[in-house]
Amino acid sequence: MRIALDAMGGDYAPAVTVEGAIETIREYDNLEIILFGDASQLKKELKGKKYPADRIHIRHASQTIGMHESPVTALRKKKDSSIRRAVDAVKNNEADAVVSAGNSGVAMASALFILGTSKGVYRPAIAAIMPTLKGSFILIDAGANVDCNAENLLQFALMGSSYSRTIFGRPEPKVALLSIGEEDTKGNELTREAFKLIKNTNLNFIGNIEGKDIFMGEADVVVCDGFIGNVVLKTSEGLADVIMKMLKREITGLSTGRVGYLLMKPALKNFRKKTDYAEYGGAPLLGINGTCIISHGRSTARAIRNAVKVAMEFSENKVHEIISEDILSCYAQEKATVEG
Amino acid sequence: MRIALDAMGGDYAPAVTVEGAIETIREYDNLEIILFGDASQLKKELKGKKYPADRIHIRHASQTIGMHESPVTALRKKKDSSIRRAVDAVKNNEADAVVSAGNSGVAMASALFILGTSKGVYRPAIAAIMPTLKGSFILIDAGANVDCNAENLLQFALMGSSYSRTIFGRPEPKVALLSIGEEDTKGNELTREAFKLIKNTNLNFIGNIEGKDIFMGEADVVVCDGFIGNVVLKTSEGLADVIMKMLKREITGLSTGRVGYLLMKPALKNFRKKTDYAEYGGAPLLGINGTCIISHGRSTARAIRNAVKVAMEFSENKVHEIISEDILSCYAQEKATVEG
Repeated sequence: MRIALDAMGGDYAPAVTVEGAIETIREYDNLEIILFGDASQLKKELKGKKYPADRIHIRHASQTIGMHESPVTALRKKKDSSIRRAVDAVKNNEADAVVSAGNSGVAMASALFILGTSKGVYRPAIAAIMPTLKGSFILIDAGANVDCNAENLLQFALMGSSYSRTIFGRPEPKVALLSIGEEDTKGNELTREAFKLIKNTNLNFIGNIEGKDIFMGEADVVVCDGFIGNVVLKTSEGLADVIMKMLKREITGLSTGRVGYLLMKPALKNFRKKTDYAEYGGAPLLGINGTCIISHGRSTARAIRNAVKVAMEFSENKVHEIISEDILSCYAQEKATVEG
Repeated sequence: MRIALDAMGGDYAPAVTVEGAIETIREYDNLEIILFGDASQLKKELKGKKYPADRIHIRHASQTIGMHESPVTALRKKKDSSIRRAVDAVKNNEADAVVSAGNSGVAMASALFILGTSKGVYRPAIAAIMPTLKGSFILIDAGANVDCNAENLLQFALMGSSYSRTIFGRPEPKVALLSIGEEDTKGNELTREAFKLIKNTNLNFIGNIEGKDIFMGEADVVVCDGFIGNVVLKTSEGLADVIMKMLKREITGLSTGRVGYLLMKPALKNFRKKTDYAEYGGAPLLGINGTCIISHGRSTARAIRNAVKVAMEFSENKVHEIISEDILSCYAQEKATVEG
C-alpha cells in the first residue's frame, strides 16, 4: 500500500505531516508513504528521526498552494505544486491514494481534474463523519458542491450508502434527507424533488430528518447540498467549542467549581475525544475515480495519521469502484422499471 | 396594552397558555390579555386561580388547528380557529399584538393573509435569538421562507438590523451573511448575489460569516434563507441537548463523577438557562403589518410569559413601522444613487 501525502498542506505543515507519516509507518509494515513538497524542508524535518527509510520517500515539488488561493488560478499557474504532484502519483499508479490537509478547494479541483469522476458519477462530494449519542453518521455533501440539483442529492445518497456499507459494515444503511420537517412534503424545492428520487431507489430511505434529530443516531447517512452541509458541520464545530467554554466559565465561577472541575476533567477529556475531528482523520472525497482524503487545515500529526488510515481503508476496499457499481446499478434498475 | 393569545396553540395548551397569561398579568398593571379558544376549557383552566378578572378576557373560538395541519387547508376550512380569531383581533384593533405557540406555518399564513406585510416588505421572516459567548445574535430568516432570492435576503438584513437597533439598543448593528467562507466570493449563487446587494446599503455589513463563528458573538444579525436558518436553529438545539447528555454520561461513568456532578450542578443549570429557548420567549415574525410573535410548540408557561413580554416590547416600540421606514428609505437611497 502506497500513500501519496501532500506534505506541504495544512496550517502546521510540513512539521505535522512528516510527524504523522512517521507515526503511521511505524504502525503498518505494509505501508509506504511518499511525501510531496519542498525536498530540503522535508529532509530537515526527517533528520534525526527514527523511521524505516526504505518506506518513506520524498518527491520534490517546487510550489506550495496557500489556504486561500483560488482553485482555478492555483491549478493553472502552479503545475508543480505538492498537492498536484501527489494526485498525479495516484493517476500514474505510483500511489494507491492521496491525502491532503491543504486548501480543500484546490485538492478537490485537482482530484476532479486529474483523476476524474467514477463512472456514472456527476459530481464528487465530501463525506464527513459526525458523532451521535449512539455512534456516528455520514454527512454528505459536507462542502464540495455549493449549488446542487435533485439528481446530485440522489447520487450523494447512493455514495453515502456505499461508504457506510463498505467501511462501517452496515448491511442496509439508513439514509435520511436533511430537511425542516419530517413529512414528505416539507422542505424546499430541492429537497422535495430529491425526496421523490431517493424514495424510488432500493436504498433504505427513512425520509426527511430535522437538524435537531441528526445527533440522536437514527440515520447512518444524512444527505444535503454542500452549502448546507458545510454550514451544519462548521456550526456544530463552533457550537461544541462555545458550549465547552461557557461551561468552563460557569464552573470556575462557582465556589465549589474548581474542585468539581478537577473531578470532572477526565469526563470532559473523554467527551472532547469523541467529538474531535482529529479522531476521524480525514473526509473522503467520494465519486472520484481513485481514493482522495481531505483533512482539516488545522490537522495535527494524529489527524494526519488517522487520515492516512482512512485512505488505506478506502483503497483496500476499493470504495470508488463500489460507488460506481452502485450508481450504475441504480440507474439500470430505474431504466428496467420504466421499460418494464 | 392588549395582547391576543392563541390559547389553544402549543403542545401543552391550554394549561400552559392560561398559566402563562396569569403570570404575566400579575407582573404588568397596564396589560390585558385576550384568550382565544374553547371557552369552556379556558374557563375550567382559569377556575380557582387568583388573577385580576377585569384584565383577562375569553373569546370563544370553536376550532383548533393541529401541529401538522397544512396552512392552506387550515386557513380555508377553519375560519373559526383560535389562531385566526387572535390575528383578526389585531386587524380590528381589539389587540395590539398576537402570540401563538401553535402550528407556526398556520400562524405565519394567518398573519400574512389577514394583516399583510408592512409597506415595502416582500416577505415576512422569523427572527430567532441565539446565545453567544458575549451575548446573543438575531438569526433571520429562521424558517418562514424555504426558497429565497437575493432581494429577500437583503430585506432580512434590513429587518434584522431594525430589530437589533430598536429592541437591543445597538446603534449600528453588525450584520453578517451566513456563508461557507469569509471572502466576498465564497458561498453559493444566492449568497454571492445577496452579498453585493447588502454591501450597497448603509447597513453596518461585516461580510460573510462561517457557521463556526456565529456563536463567538461578532455579529448582531446573521442573515440566511429560511431553510438554512431553520436547519441551523434546530441543529444547534439538538447538538446542545446531545452534548449535555454525553457529558452527563461521561461524568456519571467516573468514580469521582457523582461528587463532581453535584458540585457542578449549579453551573450546568446556569448554562441551561442561558441556552434555553424559553428564556427568549418567542420569535417575532418581522415584516408583518402588525406584531406577531411565534412561540415554540413545546412552550412552557414561562416561555408563554416571555413571548407576551416580547410582544409588548415590539408593539410599544412599533417595530413593524420602523421596519417599513427603514426598507423604504433604503430603496429611496438606492434610487437616488442610481439617478445621481
